[in-house]
Order: sequence, then C-alpha cells, then structure tokens
Amino acid sequence: MLSVVLIGTGNVSTKLAQAFSSSEDLQLLGIYGKKERKSEVLSSGHEVLEIGEFDDQADIIVIAVKDDAISSVQKELQSSKALVVHTAGSIPMDVLLPMKRRGVFYPLQTLSADRDVDFKSVPLCLESASAEDRELLENLARSISESIRWVDSSERKHLHLAAVFTNNFVNHMIRQAEKICEEHDLPKEILHPLLDETVNKAKILGAAKAQTGPAVRGDSSVIEKHLQLIADKAQHELYKTISVSIQNEYESQL
Amino acid sequence: MLSVVLIGTGNVSTKLAQAFSSSEDLQLLGIYGKKERKSEVLSSGHEVLEIGEFDDQADIIVIAVKDDAISSVQKELQSSKALVVHTAGSIPMDVLLPMKRRGVFYPLQTLSADRDVDFKSVPLCLESASAEDRELLENLARSISESIRWVDSSERKHLHLAAVFTNNFVNHMIRQAEKICEEHDLPKEILHPLLDETVNKAKILGAAKAQTGPAVRGDSSVIEKHLQLIADKAQHELYKTISVSIQNEYESQL
Repeated sequence: MLSVVLIGTGNVSTKLAQAFSSSEDLQLLGIYGKKERKSEVLSSGHEVLEIGEFDDQADIIVIAVKDDAISSVQKELQSSKALVVHTAGSIPMDVLLPMKRRGVFYPLQTLSADRDVDFKSVPLCLESASAEDRELLENLARSISESIRWVDSSERKHLHLAAVFTNNFVNHMIRQAEKICEEHDLPKEILHPLLDETVNKAKILGAAKAQTGPAVRGDSSVIEKHLQLIADKAQHELYKTISVSIQNEYESQL
Repeated sequence: MLSVVLIGTGNVSTKLAQAFSSSEDLQLLGIYGKKERKSEVLSSGHEVLEIGEFDDQADIIVIAVKDDAISSVQKELQSSKALVVHTAGSIPMDVLLPMKRRGVFYPLQTLSADRDVDFKSVPLCLESASAEDRELLENLARSISESIRWVDSSERKHLHLAAVFTNNFVNHMIRQAEKICEEHDLPKEILHPLLDETVNKAKILGAAKAQTGPAVRGDSSVIEKHLQLIADKAQHELYKTISVSIQNEYESQL
C-alpha cells in the first residue's frame, strides 16, 4: 500500500489530509508542521508532528506549504529516499533540485479549511522529473481524484494565471455586485440565479459567445449612465477599464 | 383568466412567450413585432402579428423590445386601456408616461434564444405606477416565477449595474482564462471545477471572505511573474488594474 506524509498545516494540507485519509488505497503516515495550526489538521484524525521528528518511511512526501517556504522545507529532506512533490501552481518543479526524485502534485481548486470539497472532481496536475516515478505519482492522484493531467512547469504557470482570472478576479467582480446591493439595501441573493446561469452559459457556449451587455453592444449611453451611478472611485475605474477591454476585444463584431 | 400580449421578437420576448405559454393561469393572446424575426418566436407556437394589427383585448401588454425602442412602441399604445409594462433594467418606469396604467416587469436573468431557462427561479422585479395594478402585475409574475420583488426605478438601475458585474464582467474574466488555455493548448474544461467552486463559495461565504490569491495576499512577486507571462497588452492592463483594485479593497487587512 502506498504510504504518504504531508508537510504543512494550511488549507491545502488540511484538505489533502482529509482526502488521503478517506482513500482505501493509501496510508497517510503523518502530517508535519508547526504545532500551532494543529487543531484544524487534527480534525482529519492525524497528529501534527514537528518536522524535526520526521522519519523517512514514506513512498511519497507532499510539501503543501506557502510558496516561499518550499525551499527551506526541501533542505530538511535532502537525505530522503522518497519521491518529494510540492503542490504550488506557480512554482517550477526544479525548486526541489538537487533532489532526483522530485515532482509536482497541483490541485487546481480553491481550498479552504472550512469548505468541504469533493476531491473526485478536482483536476490534479502532475509532473515528475523521472519516468520511473510517474506511475507512483499517478497512483497517489488516482486514489483521490478522477481528473488527472500531466502538466509541465511552464504549462502549469499559465494554468495558475488562468486560475487567477477564474477564481480571484471572478470573485472580485461578484464582490462589486454585492457592494452595490449592500449600498442600496437590496438582498445580494437576488443576483444568485444570474450568477449561476452566467457560469453555466460560459461553460456550455464558451465565454466569447456568451458575452452580452452594454460594452459588447457598444452602448455608450448605458455605460455613461452606469458610470454616473458609481460613487466609489475605485469601482468607477474598474467598470471603465473592463468595459474598454470588452469593447476592444469584440470591436470587429460591431 | 389573465390575458397578455407581448411586443417584441428578441431574446426576452421569445423566452417570455415560452414561459407565458406554459402557464395555465394566463392566456397569451399574441406576439407583435417585426415579421422577419418570426421564425424564432414561432417556436413558441404563436403567430407574430404586425404592430398595426394590434387589437386591445389584453389585461397586460408587455413591451420587450430594445431599450431605445420602448418610447416609439409606447406611442402606438396611447389609446390602450391595458396595463402596459416594459422589461428593461436600466430604463425608468416613467418612460411610459403619459400612460396612467404603467409598470415594469424586469427579469433579472441573462436570456438567450438558444438557452432554455427555468423561469420559476428567475427573480422578477416589479414596479407599478398605481396601487390598483399591483395585484394584476403580481398575478402575471406568479404565473411563471416563484421569485417576485417590488423594486422602484432607482433601485432597479442599481440592480442592473450589479447585474453587469455579475454577468458581463464575470464572463469577461472567464474569457481571459479561456484565452490563456487556448494559447497554451490546455483544455479550458480543466478550469470548470474551479469556476463552479468559486461561485458556490462566493454565494455561501460572501465574496469578501472568499477572496484569495496573490493580490489580496499582497504577494507582489507572484503578481510580477504573472504580468511577465501575459503577452497580450490589453490583458496585461486588465490583470494590473484588477490586482490593484483588490489590493486597495483589502489593504487594511494586510
């Protein structure tokens, strides 16, 4: 049976610990990290050990720590014989050099400690320095997800950029809509059916075909009216920039 | 039984025709509009009549035409005794003056001729100039939807602005992510689970709590790396503006 240890006590590690624990195909030997984050990770039923206590019995070591902490964690694992992978979207695999058995295990999903996630549908982007370790890493991935893809470091950094638009920037747009509702005592839930349909439409038609609204129609009268409604200077600027961007993108269609 | 006529042959009218036709509580007497758009509307089983053929037997006339055509349609209905409502988010009810029996019936949803929509969950924002017509308009709304709200013209224009962020701008963010995938031969479907979770998380936690990513963390090193990856000048500008906007919005939390 595949054995794994996790390093880190943040959101990614917490969620991976839960997923690894529920899989019958592998054994989670332990979670290593700073003691103070213990309580959250312990909800997975595993004790948090300090990294000094690390013993090297695992087939795979998964480093799920902040991007800028990967290097320092990796230095403590130099003598390890296991396959060592990190989980970061924007960090190249070779941050783990000079380790020979290095790889990446990047879950393309937003993970929060307080949100349950069904890992079965989370795309896992895998990379391995050596062909021999591919099967091992793929077995780890298949034990928790049905969506596996081999992605090299260059592709992964573009995926991570695309994920910023998909998650961070989409969320910021939703926030602006919420603020407008809050300012005018309107319940933000009234926008939820529109939000659901927006996403479904984009997924089915593709976002280019799904684009509607004053900017793509070149309807400067509605755009002007909207700009006059926005008292918040930053939101005004945001509306303007995005409208111009939409107009430029679909200009030739007008 | 409530009787309705629809004016217009665009997306909103087409979808309303389908919804009105499937309701047992009302009778759709006819659809009036330009003959050339006939085929699409006819899919609802109704003949498209020219507006000159208009006969005034309906309880409610629903004007579902382009914003700038509402006034001219309304002029042809001056002698009507029916309640006349328009369906536009950003147009005040009083565009229908001097009609006494005027109102608004605004479906807060993105409607396309080629997408089926379940009207039951579409929020209908209602407004009526006279208290006497409220019941009539509410009956029309309840015959197709379970989500009804009375919203005055001022609230509605803010809702319409919020809808632009929720639909148009969210969709434009999704488009950017799609383009990044296309440029690097990555399947855009790999982002769909992230997109679904983004929306679910924002709905449940609220977008402010759900905000993650380099901008809200103040992680300028990742932001810089992303900006270097974006070859497209317009997309570069968009990434920068939105990141600054996120940073400013959550500045005090850092």
